[in-house]
Amino acid sequence: MSEKIKGLEYLKLNSNQINHDPQKLSIYGSDWLKQWSGKASLVLFPENTKDLQNIVCWARRHKHKLVPSGGRTGLSGGASALQKEIIVSFDKMKRLLDFNPWDRTVTVEAGFITQDLQDLAKEKGLYFPISFASQGSSQIGGNIATNAGGVHVLKYGNIKRYVAGLEVVTGSGDVLTLGKALVKNATGYSLKDLFIGSEGTLALISQATLSLVSPPNKAQVFLISLENENYLLEVFKKFKSVMEPLAFEFWTDKALKHVLSHGPLNLPLQTTSPFYLLIELEEQDSEKAMALFEKFYEKGWFKDGVLSQNSKQAQEIWSLRENISEALAPYKPYKNDVSVRVSKVTDFLKSLEKLFKLHYSHFEVVVFGHLGDGNLHINILKPENMPREKFIKDCEKANVILFDLVRKYEGSISAEHGVGILKKDYLSYSRSQEEIQIMKKLKAIFDPDNILNPGKIFDL
Amino acid sequence: MSEKIKGLEYLKLNSNQINHDPQKLSIYGSDWLKQWSGKASLVLFPENTKDLQNIVCWARRHKHKLVPSGGRTGLSGGASALQKEIIVSFDKMKRLLDFNPWDRTVTVEAGFITQDLQDLAKEKGLYFPISFASQGSSQIGGNIATNAGGVHVLKYGNIKRYVAGLEVVTGSGDVLTLGKALVKNATGYSLKDLFIGSEGTLALISQATLSLVSPPNKAQVFLISLENENYLLEVFKKFKSVMEPLAFEFWTDKALKHVLSHGPLNLPLQTTSPFYLLIELEEQDSEKAMALFEKFYEKGWFKDGVLSQNSKQAQEIWSLRENISEALAPYKPYKNDVSVRVSKVTDFLKSLEKLFKLHYSHFEVVVFGHLGDGNLHINILKPENMPREKFIKDCEKANVILFDLVRKYEGSISAEHGVGILKKDYLSYSRSQEEIQIMKKLKAIFDPDNILNPGKIFDL
Repeated sequence: MSEKIKGLEYLKLNSNQINHDPQKLSIYGSDWLKQWSGKASLVLFPENTKDLQNIVCWARRHKHKLVPSGGRTGLSGGASALQKEIIVSFDKMKRLLDFNPWDRTVTVEAGFITQDLQDLAKEKGLYFPISFASQGSSQIGGNIATNAGGVHVLKYGNIKRYVAGLEVVTGSGDVLTLGKALVKNATGYSLKDLFIGSEGTLALISQATLSLVSPPNKAQVFLISLENENYLLEVFKKFKSVMEPLAFEFWTDKALKHVLSHGPLNLPLQTTSPFYLLIELEEQDSEKAMALFEKFYEKGWFKDGVLSQNSKQAQEIWSLRENISEALAPYKPYKNDVSVRVSKVTDFLKSLEKLFKLHYSHFEVVVFGHLGDGNLHINILKPENMPREKFIKDCEKANVILFDLVRKYEGSISAEHGVGILKKDYLSYSRSQEEIQIMKKLKAIFDPDNILNPGKIFDL
Repeated sequence: MSEKIKGLEYLKLNSNQINHDPQKLSIYGSDWLKQWSGKASLVLFPENTKDLQNIVCWARRHKHKLVPSGGRTGLSGGASALQKEIIVSFDKMKRLLDFNPWDRTVTVEAGFITQDLQDLAKEKGLYFPISFASQGSSQIGGNIATNAGGVHVLKYGNIKRYVAGLEVVTGSGDVLTLGKALVKNATGYSLKDLFIGSEGTLALISQATLSLVSPPNKAQVFLISLENENYLLEVFKKFKSVMEPLAFEFWTDKALKHVLSHGPLNLPLQTTSPFYLLIELEEQDSEKAMALFEKFYEKGWFKDGVLSQNSKQAQEIWSLRENISEALAPYKPYKNDVSVRVSKVTDFLKSLEKLFKLHYSHFEVVVFGHLGDGNLHINILKPENMPREKFIKDCEKANVILFDLVRKYEGSISAEHGVGILKKDYLSYSRSQEEIQIMKKLKAIFDPDNILNPGKIFDL
């Protein structure tokens, strides 16, 4: 039986916007990682900004804690309820509010699905460049709250570049309308940027105006296999010197093994190698790319390669990369998502290799990622017989060594997955004590009673 | 004779880094606008971050106010000393610290000249896209402190997009190293963005790491004359639907008149019209552009046009736009720099016209700007016989009416010139009371004793 929620009778929502169902509580109180099981006390479904404001003001008055919940595709526990928090779901805030062909902007409610925005843009002859494996269920509000990136950051940047306007409800209950879709506005501090990537700890995002861009030209995909990590960066640099690749992804033979055994894909190459590179480029650049490949082949940098001849083949090559996470899911991997400057990727990979041998020898470690952004996803697979708790403890021990290395390389301990709960204890590896103190003071300005997503990013 | 500066004997700088010369005080205490004459008590020349930190800590202890001074090309009084403040000049912090060809980044001290950065990028086969008339003397630190834009914002965005890393000294004396040139970093709030556009009120920028990009293809420039403002936006939209123009600038016949009489330029057209458009595009798109022009001509949208045949001609056309500010300078214009959404530009221009007739009838008003960004520079010329003080008072009266219109159009009262002193009293036309209160709280976090550029953006 559900506990009584203090002051619930004063909450100005309809009864169909309030859900106590234990199964729903469990689903809505956890993210994709599922490391923290849902322990929510209630799920609320606001339908507009006014509802959101009512919820925040009510929660302040009755000392409730709120956890915003988008598509729950996060990988750091950012949308998990740990201590009977109240979930604020955006599932009933999915409306398209405006499309402006002159400004090339679209205004949506926070619950709008990422994939739907891509489809809408396409329908209008435009393009929304934020793209990643979970786009079919992730929501725009969550994308903004984590400053989502994905596979096309290399050319297009993170979602921050496309947030032209933002409406938020702060932890004080203020509704702020920021940016207003102006290209230029030099009137004081950019508050809008503070909320992007703040993981729901400063405000609830209610609406966003996003800039769309001209669609890219037709793309082609190269897949090549490399014998040696020394060539990864060389190949990247040579490409960047003659074109702007759309994506520059990489994975290891271990990642490939899992994808192929997960099925039903095939490797369209004759031989296998320790490293694979996927390079997406605009068709107009394919001649330049061919010339580069000939050069690389002559130098002995790669053994085998293939160029997609149509969009079906391109998609098949992409699937080799995109299916990695899904193929690893049955192993309940412990995930790390780190980044270093692009120029340091090769050295960092070599140092990682040594570190894995020394400290992860009892684990299988799968590495893949967005090489062009210096972003590596490191997945540690749970041995079948190891209890989950021991596994996580062991991974956390190894974290300290990994993050020491990241700090040495002046990198980030979370490139695009955010901090959430998973990386909270390690924040000081990427941010100074002064910065962390400032962040806490910022939190106090926007959320003085600490009711918004408490215990995420840092503890107060 | 100069007054005694409290505690000066405790300031850890060499004597050649401290200047009392009244002429220097006057020069360093004022910006390009010169509406506020320099009333500084001292000019300091730090040579590195440590010097800056010493200055801030010393100023806190002895209750001095500091005004950061870059190239002083600002147009809102942001770098002016009003009440015996101490100027912190970046003229001795102009070093190039690093160039990284793999990451395509350059790290410079805050006093590095904008034009020098462009030249450096060019020398390395790359491109730094922030470009405007005063780039020969403006400094990178000042560019960042005002989130500078310029003529290529349309394609490239403001400087914010290129700030990959930032080192600042806050008003508390903390040195923060932010961003670290990582493409991706999702570890808490983006403090870096708070300092961009903060006009020296939160911290002094000591160093910046800027991203460079591939150079644009060879450009061509179209100049066309339009009979009617209705066509401005139509032309823009048609262009945007087939290419990404590099610049889309406009000015009126009044602006042209001043530029031509200032000399030595000629208008390369047969006829004159009320509006002129400069469209810069990549050479590869010139056929598409020609096709559009034929269509526009058939529709009767424009009377006359010319396409640059070489870079000299392109520069001559650009000079018609770039020389406007200089040509108006003798009239000591009162400057407004507003923006609206691009889609609202035509309606806004029409409303402006009416407003000028009603409330500015005794003034000559010159309008030009970055049409593609919705950014209009409105210059009110001082009648020769009117005393400066009365002129400014009259302009300020008219401001209220202009800014009411801007608010009605949900625009910005300062698109790219910042707030400084000039727009301080009007901040509430573009930012809500809640936002302004939050900005003051942010100021208190970073500069608890209000020693950094006090009285700029807002009064405490």
